[in-house]
Amino acid sequence: METLLEKIHAVVGAAGLITGADVSARSDSWPPTGGCQAKAIVRPSSTGEVAAVLRLCHERGQAVVTHGGLTGLVGGARAGSEDIVISLERMRRLEPVDVVNRTVTVEAGVVLQTLHEAAERAGLMFPLDLGARGSCTIGGNISTNAGGNSVIRYGMMREQVLGIEAVMADGTIVSSLNTVIKNNTGYDLKQLFIGSEGTLGIVTRAVLRLRPLPRSRNTALVSIDGFAGLCRLLQVMDTGLGGTLSAFEVLWNDFYKMIVGDGSRLGLPLPASHDFYVLIEATGSHDDIDRARFERALEEAFEEKLIVDAVIAQNQQQRAGLWAIRDDIENMMSSLHPAITFDISLGIPHMDTYVTAVRENLLQRWPECRMVAFGHIGDGNIHLVLTVGSTAPEVLHAVDTLVYGTLQSFNGVISAEHGIGLHKRSFLPLSRKENEIKLMRSLKQALDPKGILNPGKIFATGPGSTP
Amino acid sequence: METLLEKIHAVVGAAGLITGADVSARSDSWPPTGGCQAKAIVRPSSTGEVAAVLRLCHERGQAVVTHGGLTGLVGGARAGSEDIVISLERMRRLEPVDVVNRTVTVEAGVVLQTLHEAAERAGLMFPLDLGARGSCTIGGNISTNAGGNSVIRYGMMREQVLGIEAVMADGTIVSSLNTVIKNNTGYDLKQLFIGSEGTLGIVTRAVLRLRPLPRSRNTALVSIDGFAGLCRLLQVMDTGLGGTLSAFEVLWNDFYKMIVGDGSRLGLPLPASHDFYVLIEATGSHDDIDRARFERALEEAFEEKLIVDAVIAQNQQQRAGLWAIRDDIENMMSSLHPAITFDISLGIPHMDTYVTAVRENLLQRWPECRMVAFGHIGDGNIHLVLTVGSTAPEVLHAVDTLVYGTLQSFNGVISAEHGIGLHKRSFLPLSRKENEIKLMRSLKQALDPKGILNPGKIFATGPGSTP
Repeated sequence: METLLEKIHAVVGAAGLITGADVSARSDSWPPTGGCQAKAIVRPSSTGEVAAVLRLCHERGQAVVTHGGLTGLVGGARAGSEDIVISLERMRRLEPVDVVNRTVTVEAGVVLQTLHEAAERAGLMFPLDLGARGSCTIGGNISTNAGGNSVIRYGMMREQVLGIEAVMADGTIVSSLNTVIKNNTGYDLKQLFIGSEGTLGIVTRAVLRLRPLPRSRNTALVSIDGFAGLCRLLQVMDTGLGGTLSAFEVLWNDFYKMIVGDGSRLGLPLPASHDFYVLIEATGSHDDIDRARFERALEEAFEEKLIVDAVIAQNQQQRAGLWAIRDDIENMMSSLHPAITFDISLGIPHMDTYVTAVRENLLQRWPECRMVAFGHIGDGNIHLVLTVGSTAPEVLHAVDTLVYGTLQSFNGVISAEHGIGLHKRSFLPLSRKENEIKLMRSLKQALDPKGILNPGKIFATGPGSTP
Repeated sequence: METLLEKIHAVVGAAGLITGADVSARSDSWPPTGGCQAKAIVRPSSTGEVAAVLRLCHERGQAVVTHGGLTGLVGGARAGSEDIVISLERMRRLEPVDVVNRTVTVEAGVVLQTLHEAAERAGLMFPLDLGARGSCTIGGNISTNAGGNSVIRYGMMREQVLGIEAVMADGTIVSSLNTVIKNNTGYDLKQLFIGSEGTLGIVTRAVLRLRPLPRSRNTALVSIDGFAGLCRLLQVMDTGLGGTLSAFEVLWNDFYKMIVGDGSRLGLPLPASHDFYVLIEATGSHDDIDRARFERALEEAFEEKLIVDAVIAQNQQQRAGLWAIRDDIENMMSSLHPAITFDISLGIPHMDTYVTAVRENLLQRWPECRMVAFGHIGDGNIHLVLTVGSTAPEVLHAVDTLVYGTLQSFNGVISAEHGIGLHKRSFLPLSRKENEIKLMRSLKQALDPKGILNPGKIFATGPGSTP
């Protein structure tokens, strides 16, 4: 009798099947370090092939973990030794951009940056943008409902998706490739697959919404003392920029100092002695009009004494210089090695109190702890990156418990944009009620009764051997 | 043994239960004409009461139809003589606006206009707006995923909802009252209840997102010849207004002529001899800057010879006058009595060809047919209103078949914002594939196995006697 892998081979061919040492040479987490334990990596080249493979796996109750660009931070792509990985890396077709309707249909394996470039060539923009743009894929962006730098203006990945084609656990293809902005014809099925981390189906294609390409861009870095002023500044900018505010990225003092301190190659655009630094960006249609509006909004903030100091980028190079400070994650991660990262949503007014409370609690337990805070304040989302000198499982758990425990009293959420995956699943009940999790499980049961899709992610289920 | 109504009475009290002639004096469709056939109308005053009532109904397999403001256009609130109606009209609590986080928590029975006013008092705006604002409710807006006039800028109701509290078919309360913009902690359960027309649960409360209140508003009516120019105008405005475009409402010549022709009280802002009229509105932050931008964008359009003529509102009264033309639905409905309305999404470039084809096909069959077209072109959504002199069921069906049949070759969608309800359910397969409908039914089966929630709406199910 043919084995499962032989049958899969017959579907996808030699180019579509990786086994043995070629599997363990690959990674299933970020940063990539090799060591994928799956018994095979299947690389289908079409939705039909994904469906045929999944049908075979479903018959046998074979657990399947789907791989995109592998830049997730919560272990959502981790595979155990009994799992089969389905990688969508060969599904990179990008159909021509529909310029009038501003849509594009892409396969799940298309890399985000490739989409950015295709949209720009057509005079349009795909607004979702994040640091991993060069390797993360559209399928991964969808299944994790990615966020990033322009959520304040354009929303998360969920808001960019018009239609989805997905393969269900039993191999059924659900092609819901809606191309229009408004479609109230029954249940909005694509929502099932957005942000469900590959546990309800495998997204193989999507119709995405594109936006007009901005013709002007104004960027400033400002310094602020006092958190109340920061909250007010957000209001002044959001109102004063009249819907053109596209980034409001806040760096706590410790983040700023770490990145630009001590003769960094990034220079020191503003003195490092203030409480907060905000990278403000607005995109628009006319250089002169938008510049006037941008300066007017900053003036309003100066008049209200919200801003201590400001530097406005005068050209693309200066703009890139300001963003480099926000984006110097590599420098930060190496300064805080071994780093533990957090991705938290909470009410904007509570953010600084929360950060202070977490820092104090951490220092009490780990006096050598160092932590920086930064994030997309306009979206109610901050990131904490910290080190206590170890990332041993019991240390990780203790740090998680403290960081999330402190969050409880602020009514915060343990994942804003990274998802739950494996790493956060034991803390899910901190952010979701019992009846919510029960309803999630009912959905999982209805759509994947054998529990073969990315088992153990979000909550513990199914027959998979995922660690 | 106590009857079901006696048990319900014990839960909701006398004020919460309507029976007999008081039921048939009420309506379950729009325009209101009385004649609700339900065996009772239950008016719970809290989520707990909704849950208790639903638990009782679930035990007995009693079908339930939920009522909001009853302004839907597809029969989604129609109840049969064996159904019980649950009206959320007594659940109108509106919690204080959270100004910094820009959220508000409301009960489902809150009227849209009441929310508008509360947001404005707090210096903010709730952007969803539609003609029925004075009577439609937030619960209805959510369960139908309402659209309206500012979708182009702010999206549909789905995009305004952060959290939902809903009661499931068996009376379980799922409280998913998320208040943050970004929350990737497991499945986004609220999506199940948005746009599912009361068939998967009863929405009792919601957390809604508010936006900055615009400080400037520019409005123009322009005339255009040729549909290609209209498509190009949309691009020029959307790019030229840099994200501040908040309405792009197109009136086909026949609509414009009907409303302003023959000495209408609305005046004649532009000659009625052109192919299309567009109401363009942009909202922003500064009168002078935004006016300059608005005029610049119109100049660009003039230079490209896209616009024949334009009138820009110089004050609020003139602005209201221009909107009155777009909003004079009453005049239109009486001119086209008895009217049949359609709500269609399709690719923008095909719209005029489609409208022409539908008109020709209708005239061939009903030479006395009159039809007007208008709509939210920027969202890919047009409305057709027509009369063939009768709305007898067999005539309605024949007109539907023709209008939707013609749509098929344009890859269009039979409902952009009105939903499916009863009236469109037999045409659902024109817009959704067999596997999509199968998946919808799986969801319905998983969440409402007895089929008691709004039975027969969207697709035929359950034990209800809905006509």
